[in-house]
Amino acid sequence: MMKEDNHLEKINRRQLIGRVAAMGLVLTQGPFERVIQTAGLPMSASDDPTKKLGPFPGKLGTRSPAEQLEKLTSFTSSRSPLQDFYGIITPSDLHFERHHGGVPAIDPEKYELLIHGMVERPLKFTLRDLKRFPSVSQIRFLECSGNYRGGNEELTPQHICGLTSQSEWTGVMLSTLFREVGLKPKASWFLAEGGDAAVMTRSIPISKGLDDAMIVYAQNGEAVRPEQGYPARLFLPGWEGNTSIKWLRRIELSDSPFMTREETSKYTERIKDGKIRQFSVVMDARSIITFPTFPVSVEKGWMEIRGIAWSGRGKITTVEVSVDNGKNWYPARLQHPVLDKAHTAFRFLWQWDGRETVIMSRAYDETGYRQPFLQELVEARGSSGGYHFNPVVPWRLKPDGQVVLASETQGRGRGRRPTP
Amino acid sequence: MMKEDNHLEKINRRQLIGRVAAMGLVLTQGPFERVIQTAGLPMSASDDPTKKLGPFPGKLGTRSPAEQLEKLTSFTSSRSPLQDFYGIITPSDLHFERHHGGVPAIDPEKYELLIHGMVERPLKFTLRDLKRFPSVSQIRFLECSGNYRGGNEELTPQHICGLTSQSEWTGVMLSTLFREVGLKPKASWFLAEGGDAAVMTRSIPISKGLDDAMIVYAQNGEAVRPEQGYPARLFLPGWEGNTSIKWLRRIELSDSPFMTREETSKYTERIKDGKIRQFSVVMDARSIITFPTFPVSVEKGWMEIRGIAWSGRGKITTVEVSVDNGKNWYPARLQHPVLDKAHTAFRFLWQWDGRETVIMSRAYDETGYRQPFLQELVEARGSSGGYHFNPVVPWRLKPDGQVVLASETQGRGRGRRPTP
Repeated sequence: MMKEDNHLEKINRRQLIGRVAAMGLVLTQGPFERVIQTAGLPMSASDDPTKKLGPFPGKLGTRSPAEQLEKLTSFTSSRSPLQDFYGIITPSDLHFERHHGGVPAIDPEKYELLIHGMVERPLKFTLRDLKRFPSVSQIRFLECSGNYRGGNEELTPQHICGLTSQSEWTGVMLSTLFREVGLKPKASWFLAEGGDAAVMTRSIPISKGLDDAMIVYAQNGEAVRPEQGYPARLFLPGWEGNTSIKWLRRIELSDSPFMTREETSKYTERIKDGKIRQFSVVMDARSIITFPTFPVSVEKGWMEIRGIAWSGRGKITTVEVSVDNGKNWYPARLQHPVLDKAHTAFRFLWQWDGRETVIMSRAYDETGYRQPFLQELVEARGSSGGYHFNPVVPWRLKPDGQVVLASETQGRGRGRRPTP
Repeated sequence: MMKEDNHLEKINRRQLIGRVAAMGLVLTQGPFERVIQTAGLPMSASDDPTKKLGPFPGKLGTRSPAEQLEKLTSFTSSRSPLQDFYGIITPSDLHFERHHGGVPAIDPEKYELLIHGMVERPLKFTLRDLKRFPSVSQIRFLECSGNYRGGNEELTPQHICGLTSQSEWTGVMLSTLFREVGLKPKASWFLAEGGDAAVMTRSIPISKGLDDAMIVYAQNGEAVRPEQGYPARLFLPGWEGNTSIKWLRRIELSDSPFMTREETSKYTERIKDGKIRQFSVVMDARSIITFPTFPVSVEKGWMEIRGIAWSGRGKITTVEVSVDNGKNWYPARLQHPVLDKAHTAFRFLWQWDGRETVIMSRAYDETGYRQPFLQELVEARGSSGGYHFNPVVPWRLKPDGQVVLASETQGRGRGRRPTP
């Protein structure tokens, strides 16, 4: 198995106890404590946490001063520090944000959701009403459609695709509310409208509303955070984040899409030959290695390559890792249970020989889709960026152990859309 | 399906638009916004979040001022507000705490875990070492063995059994580290020792160490919180919380239990005939309704009875709910996937006729175990409290809608152990 000779120091317990005796320490508790307290000699009593009563239990837990994580912010978004995460749950205060008019302050007592248009019974629902209906909890990712940034070597996973996060979302199925209001036969689309300063709006096909759309009021066990749509938001599993309208205040049923600004001038993609994709709302399968990546340095020997993979079209079936710049690929271990439309942790144990190389991962989902290389995306789209840009991301390990982004040719402007 | 006539107000859109026109509002944006902005007439522009740019994305998300959850604290513990939770993830800062010497401040750069005793190669592991090994993530509950309190009507689920919480835990399997150090043939127990002021110690059979014990350094996506054992703790799925030694600094292999104070004077239970149970470490199956409970009031009509169920012996197979004080029982809906040794959300849709009644839940796990009634526990143990006390908890709905604990006969002293 693994050898950790660089790190693991063999302990000779007899020697340690001898050292304790030599220091003349008073042994008041028992032999077990003595051994460890002296393992890092010299040590004063004030350095020793076993000699000092710690703080009592508190009303709220805290982060260690050594683990003060933050999002990277801009005027319109903030990115989750993927390289600092373990597993699949994103702490709610580190969930990425993308707002179109900032975060509105909504009084939960005054909150109402109106459902009207092509329905039998237009109805308003208070927050309390929403919570009376049968509820569902699902662990699902949420990702911004513009979640890609290339550039120089010194980019982290947070820079490259920190606009994805994952929570356990709880709420009522939209199909349940649709039964309450009664859809008219011609209803085939609905408008979802937010109560923010942008009055954010998107048109959604009824099929999604009847399939797995939710109105969620809770996230990771507690009320949805204001930045995530408090007191209630639409949640469309697997779809681009902007369609999961936050601060949801109105749903209008109709027989056609509403052609709001977010589906005409925004959130469409230029593809080849001057054409534009519209309502391209499902997030394609992708993966990213989160360790080792810039800015860490590694040592030769065994390490575990780690990352997350996800797909808006279902479950991840396979993640492959290459440690030789794409020549050979090996299946990574997936953390079970693998959930539908969810970040899935993958891991690959690897012994690095210390020579410069490039590592990368690629994801497959249950539709058979494979995460594309940058070059494949450029050939298909005619550009090197834009929405729904999910290329394989390679990382270079330099001989000194420094890990950097190996995608000099992948660059697009920092957050800008490509010129057609 | 559900009828919400008490709450849901029918909207006549034509009337609303008429009202807007009558008010002489300037319509600058489009017809959709108008309808809703006037739905709560009269309204001033300053009340309207759509008229004010909100704060930009931040480095850390926040809780709504209306949702400031807290734990209930004592000198030695703090309890999770179960009645305010949704789903199964406990926000890390609301995870219950139980300390024996407070929370030590441990420098992660100086942290070391020693494994010695009946091993071939005694070794010390730094935090960085631990993270180089193959890792695993599991969503599992953690519960204090003293997690029961009875008493008067005005107790919440937080009072009664708030010493249970659930996280996604990430770390290295202890079996992996055991392979590194090489267990000697006679090794059958190990001591786990914490680096806190209590120098907390427990003896654990090797079988648990080789089965599913973990050394965890992450919780819900980020580093373990100081209150939960930062930088690393033992985690024994399904076992009473005190055995999952926090701030773990030493593991010593032996051929017998160490008989520490925590398994001789503490954490043993008096049972019938003056006998005492020792090493009774597995948490039995139980459930608790978290809505509706004290202190909420409900209205007659449809509501969803909600709660959590869990077992230290495997998966929950069934949760039954009674709405007539135990006469009839119906299966609740379980949220899937149902995970091993994990809080499992259950839900039961119910139409209350407004007459006084008592509701309760009982859990079954895959060993066939059924959560006992208080009376069954008293008959078996000869007392009405103590460790591993997991009775069915009944809630009385009064005609005015007030919900209270219906267990006047269940009382034991607030947190005290019963007199033998």
